[in-house]
Amino acid sequence: MKTKTLLITILFLATLTLTAQRRILNTPELPGYVTLKCDFHSHTVFSDGLVWPTQRIGEVWRDGLDVIAITDHIEYQPRKQYIPVDHNAAWKIAKSTADNYNIILVHGTEITRSMPPGHLNALFITDADSLNKPEFMDVIAAAVRQGAFIQWNHPGWKSQEPDGIPKMYPVHKELIAKGWLHGIEYYNDVEFYPLVMDMCHDNKLALMGNSDIHGVISEEFMEPEYTHRPMTFVFAKERTLESLKEAMFARRTAVWYGNSLAAFEEYAAPLFWSVVSAGAPFKDDGKAIWFELSNSSDMTMDLTGGPEGAPSTLKVPANGMVVVKADRKYLTEPIPYSVSNIITGSTSVLKVEIRPAKK
Amino acid sequence: MKTKTLLITILFLATLTLTAQRRILNTPELPGYVTLKCDFHSHTVFSDGLVWPTQRIGEVWRDGLDVIAITDHIEYQPRKQYIPVDHNAAWKIAKSTADNYNIILVHGTEITRSMPPGHLNALFITDADSLNKPEFMDVIAAAVRQGAFIQWNHPGWKSQEPDGIPKMYPVHKELIAKGWLHGIEYYNDVEFYPLVMDMCHDNKLALMGNSDIHGVISEEFMEPEYTHRPMTFVFAKERTLESLKEAMFARRTAVWYGNSLAAFEEYAAPLFWSVVSAGAPFKDDGKAIWFELSNSSDMTMDLTGGPEGAPSTLKVPANGMVVVKADRKYLTEPIPYSVSNIITGSTSVLKVEIRPAKK
Amino acid sequence: MKTKTLLITILFLATLTLTAQRRILNTPELPGYVTLKCDFHSHTVFSDGLVWPTQRIGEVWRDGLDVIAITDHIEYQPRKQYIPVDHNAAWKIAKSTADNYNIILVHGTEITRSMPPGHLNALFITDADSLNKPEFMDVIAAAVRQGAFIQWNHPGWKSQEPDGIPKMYPVHKELIAKGWLHGIEYYNDVEFYPLVMDMCHDNKLALMGNSDIHGVISEEFMEPEYTHRPMTFVFAKERTLESLKEAMFARRTAVWYGNSLAAFEEYAAPLFWSVVSAGAPFKDDGKAIWFELSNSSDMTMDLTGGPEGAPSTLKVPANGMVVVKADRKYLTEPIPYSVSNIITGSTSVLKVEIRPAKK
Amino acid sequence: MKTKTLLITILFLATLTLTAQRRILNTPELPGYVTLKCDFHSHTVFSDGLVWPTQRIGEVWRDGLDVIAITDHIEYQPRKQYIPVDHNAAWKIAKSTADNYNIILVHGTEITRSMPPGHLNALFITDADSLNKPEFMDVIAAAVRQGAFIQWNHPGWKSQEPDGIPKMYPVHKELIAKGWLHGIEYYNDVEFYPLVMDMCHDNKLALMGNSDIHGVISEEFMEPEYTHRPMTFVFAKERTLESLKEAMFARRTAVWYGNSLAAFEEYAAPLFWSVVSAGAPFKDDGKAIWFELSNSSDMTMDLTGGPEGAPSTLKVPANGMVVVKADRKYLTEPIPYSVSNIITGSTSVLKVEIRPAKK
Repeated sequence: MKTKTLLITILFLATLTLTAQRRILNTPELPGYVTLKCDFHSHTVFSDGLVWPTQRIGEVWRDGLDVIAITDHIEYQPRKQYIPVDHNAAWKIAKSTADNYNIILVHGTEITRSMPPGHLNALFITDADSLNKPEFMDVIAAAVRQGAFIQWNHPGWKSQEPDGIPKMYPVHKELIAKGWLHGIEYYNDVEFYPLVMDMCHDNKLALMGNSDIHGVISEEFMEPEYTHRPMTFVFAKERTLESLKEAMFARRTAVWYGNSLAAFEEYAAPLFWSVVSAGAPFKDDGKAIWFELSNSSDMTMDLTGGPEGAPSTLKVPANGMVVVKADRKYLTEPIPYSVSNIITGSTSVLKVEIRPAKK
Repeated sequence: MKTKTLLITILFLATLTLTAQRRILNTPELPGYVTLKCDFHSHTVFSDGLVWPTQRIGEVWRDGLDVIAITDHIEYQPRKQYIPVDHNAAWKIAKSTADNYNIILVHGTEITRSMPPGHLNALFITDADSLNKPEFMDVIAAAVRQGAFIQWNHPGWKSQEPDGIPKMYPVHKELIAKGWLHGIEYYNDVEFYPLVMDMCHDNKLALMGNSDIHGVISEEFMEPEYTHRPMTFVFAKERTLESLKEAMFARRTAVWYGNSLAAFEEYAAPLFWSVVSAGAPFKDDGKAIWFELSNSSDMTMDLTGGPEGAPSTLKVPANGMVVVKADRKYLTEPIPYSVSNIITGSTSVLKVEIRPAKK
Repeated sequence: MKTKTLLITILFLATLTLTAQRRILNTPELPGYVTLKCDFHSHTVFSDGLVWPTQRIGEVWRDGLDVIAITDHIEYQPRKQYIPVDHNAAWKIAKSTADNYNIILVHGTEITRSMPPGHLNALFITDADSLNKPEFMDVIAAAVRQGAFIQWNHPGWKSQEPDGIPKMYPVHKELIAKGWLHGIEYYNDVEFYPLVMDMCHDNKLALMGNSDIHGVISEEFMEPEYTHRPMTFVFAKERTLESLKEAMFARRTAVWYGNSLAAFEEYAAPLFWSVVSAGAPFKDDGKAIWFELSNSSDMTMDLTGGPEGAPSTLKVPANGMVVVKADRKYLTEPIPYSVSNIITGSTSVLKVEIRPAKK
Repeated sequence: MKTKTLLITILFLATLTLTAQRRILNTPELPGYVTLKCDFHSHTVFSDGLVWPTQRIGEVWRDGLDVIAITDHIEYQPRKQYIPVDHNAAWKIAKSTADNYNIILVHGTEITRSMPPGHLNALFITDADSLNKPEFMDVIAAAVRQGAFIQWNHPGWKSQEPDGIPKMYPVHKELIAKGWLHGIEYYNDVEFYPLVMDMCHDNKLALMGNSDIHGVISEEFMEPEYTHRPMTFVFAKERTLESLKEAMFARRTAVWYGNSLAAFEEYAAPLFWSVVSAGAPFKDDGKAIWFELSNSSDMTMDLTGGPEGAPSTLKVPANGMVVVKADRKYLTEPIPYSVSNIITGSTSVLKVEIRPAKK
């Protein structure tokens, strides 16, 4: 029948549209690892999102990310009048598109409770339907048996914590004690929770940051305000699902959001130096030297707190450079700065020492 | 139960997101009428689209349109494994959101057959489920009984007409003879079909242009290539569903696509003059005069074929103006131009006469 | 000689380049007047600017302004080694280009002294060379004899007032007493001085705001940070030099800078209502009403301080609209807001009352 | 005196403005060399340009270029009524700013005659005043004695060659015979001359492309139409004036304009492969393979003429990638394409063979 041929053609065209173009994200990268750009929190029509699962693959592919988890709510199913509940449907639908675009699709779901415990994502699961149980601890236990990485979502979300401050409740401490909590969202959608830096540090959990997108990425995170969605960097040995999982349980993560990066000290410094470099002085008038400070990433670096005889602030533009004029003594001494948009703790930012290159 | 409160909160927030901001489209307008900006062809997850119906309302609201028809395929239901077939679902879901945003939602559907007859939209229907019949003529008859406006979609679509040229088959002539065909798409998605100008003119049908969007509007029609989706202008007596319908059956329409406008002569000239005006000469050196030519619309006007003693071409920018230097004789004679981006027939464009204003 | 023909051709082409396109600025306008968009402070290579005078005409023409004053420094002539001092040269060079583009060119100069008195522009002069005198009061007297409007520039400029706070010195009071001071810059380049609102109000002086451009406008005031240069609105009876001058001495001015407008009460409210309008309620559910609030200008309106039962803030976008959902009581009562980006005094902003239109 | 301090402050601030930010151009680069981005043709107020010489340094610095030549006309001095003729002034004024920004400033001038010989730039000169002689050959001889590189400018400029086609006149052949002509502009402003590819190839001359800017770079070469000015790539051993000169006389150049690159075969292929790479197949369904094709430059690569079993065209986006689906046979055979925007001759473009990487 002719109609069939026609329909196949339509389908084929729809698929082609996805092809379009993929942007390359020029981000700081951790030497010795593959820096995977990941979004571990997103929704579709299979809970309260506005898009079909394949749209999520198209978005991450075009935006230059490597990994997406679709994490529809288990307990919140506002579309069920029209779409029969199937907690694995989004995963099944999106998988072949992900394979066609070399995107790593993480099977996940969002366990959606009032606070405490709040909302938690179970990632790297094998069956979401089996996580639809009344008792919260039973759900987590089942997810952990599937090998899940458990992420506590937006712990300071004002709908659940009116003061916006994340708090560790007994249930969270119990999860940690059991080894059943592996990461916390420091950043979600357009909010961030500074205390999560300490909560992750003190409890040896991974720092996470995700879009929690319900609508369309390009409408929520638009220029000029946003040049990219919030995302988690995972420093993996290889670009595979297995390596990704290993790296997450090993807590090798950082969070890129707006024009800021949140990362623990051990990662923050090498990330910075992977993209910033100082040239040799190109002018020396006997009093001062002039040299270039370059930044090869898509993230502007905001240096503040410069010392006497050097610029007090330096905004090193994304994919750009500035000229630094500094005292001659800095031929031999380093110039200390704070990088005010690389966050290393709830009250600390990265400290760096700039040294002009040798000729 | 706490969860319920929470869930309602989530829903409320999702709704708020739509609020954002609505753009005002500064388009040519037909004096004496309200120019409604309309898209009569769009899809959702209820056939082969990628979005939930409310997304279509958010898009038209933000983009400054007045009217949207969701026209999911009747015969093509690739999501039926996950979403039970309900041809009225998209309409039911989107209606209350449309009401909250003052958007006129037209109940529609796409009758999806191989060529001939090809694809046709039935607009202003009351029940799409009842149009799911095997015989094409039975479907149209049923739609017409519901009061439908029948639009023939993309008649030169290459998947159905490999040479890209629209052709009137006997079935189309039969529809016209019965008064069962009311408009044809001159423009669809990113394609246009020049011959449709003649087909509409000769058969007294309305000229239509629509997005046929399956994915996300802001991803398909992006700057700098596109500043707006393709749309149909309908010149209505009032901004109501009834006036809209009256105007469409009366064929008071035009099509705005890319930076072009397709309209029959009777509308093209007043549309042009609703936004373009010439100032009085501000300089006169005895040989030449200088005057301003302004354009208050979002559409650049491309004037070509200027006579001796005047600029051969004039590109009057959207929301801008140019200075025209012309022979003094044009103080008393009009300056003839073709407006190459206002299309009035398959082989004709609008002719205008520019006259500087009197002091 | 062939070379001559060639050179004339080059000159002609250079002139044509200016033609390009002029943007129309959609600004609030004072009913009953022509709102002239003016920049009364700019520099060229004839003092310390980086451009030839005709570039200043091209810039204002393209940017949609009506009036420009070139105000090179009298006492600061860093280019004199290469360009012989001629304080009227910029005016002479730019005049014919201004005439070709219907731009009103104001003959001006900047009297450049240390503080007090600081820098002052003399506008509407006839000869700048004659203002090159050692005694400051002699210069002002001479300018006033030429019919000049005297503007005190950037009174809180940190290079002259390290605390950034403008101060009336005896010399300024003397100027005012003599009627020799007519306006003060509230805004200059990227700085604004709140106290100037009071200084102008109390002394019956005109509020001024200008670019003080030395380099290139499109490089200094770029999107997304700036959509236009700072400018003075002058509410004139006609678009002529004479009407401009009359309006300025009558202090009918306002200042548009960034996304803010500074204007005294008598102008602020009609300016706001010239572009903002509320529609009739399009929905009424018995508890609340829904209506549109539209803004036809290029300036976003920031409404804050909304009452119970109405949105606490409303950001009405440039060339756009929002939907307002408010208590039914606002069918009969006005909804009070502050317009936080329309400044009416050193500590006050415009108060407005929003009323949905009658059906 | 206070005024002095003030004035110095003003000067200092003006200098700082230039600092702003420098963009990094991600262009194809020739392995083994430093690819210097150069503009060898620009004007200032010292002939018929609209800007002061330091503006030219600010522009190239911000735009990421390495080299600028200011080449004001010797014979065309329309500003001489205001600016005494000094053919070396622009060089003297701009040199210290260039030194402060690590920009290589080439001392140059434009010898401006009717055609033939037309306009020629003398680059790397030591004194432009001494080139102001009536006899053309005397001028070139004098320039060559100064060590000049002689570039023939816009040989098909319609003001001098009404048919737009460059022609070798006897005078040009004489220059070549004497070794007094070293390069020809293939691209100038917004025009290009295909035959120059052959003229340079056959006569062993360097391919040149420049802005010939008279106004302001950011106004002439604006997004979305232009993302950069036209420029000459020079493949130098080091980033020094001497290396630059050596490379130019050795004809190691290419031209980047719009989204095209003109380069002789020996450079075109390595330039392409310096930024384009194919990944290993990430999917293999037994019939077809899928792999990524990436482009790390700011220049989109347009591949056309693909064979059976592979995409007929591939638009590999700037800083982006596409997915290629191709027949399994291309695991072992290369896939041939033309790169339609890398021009290698008057009628030829670069041919490449794409091979997916080994796993």
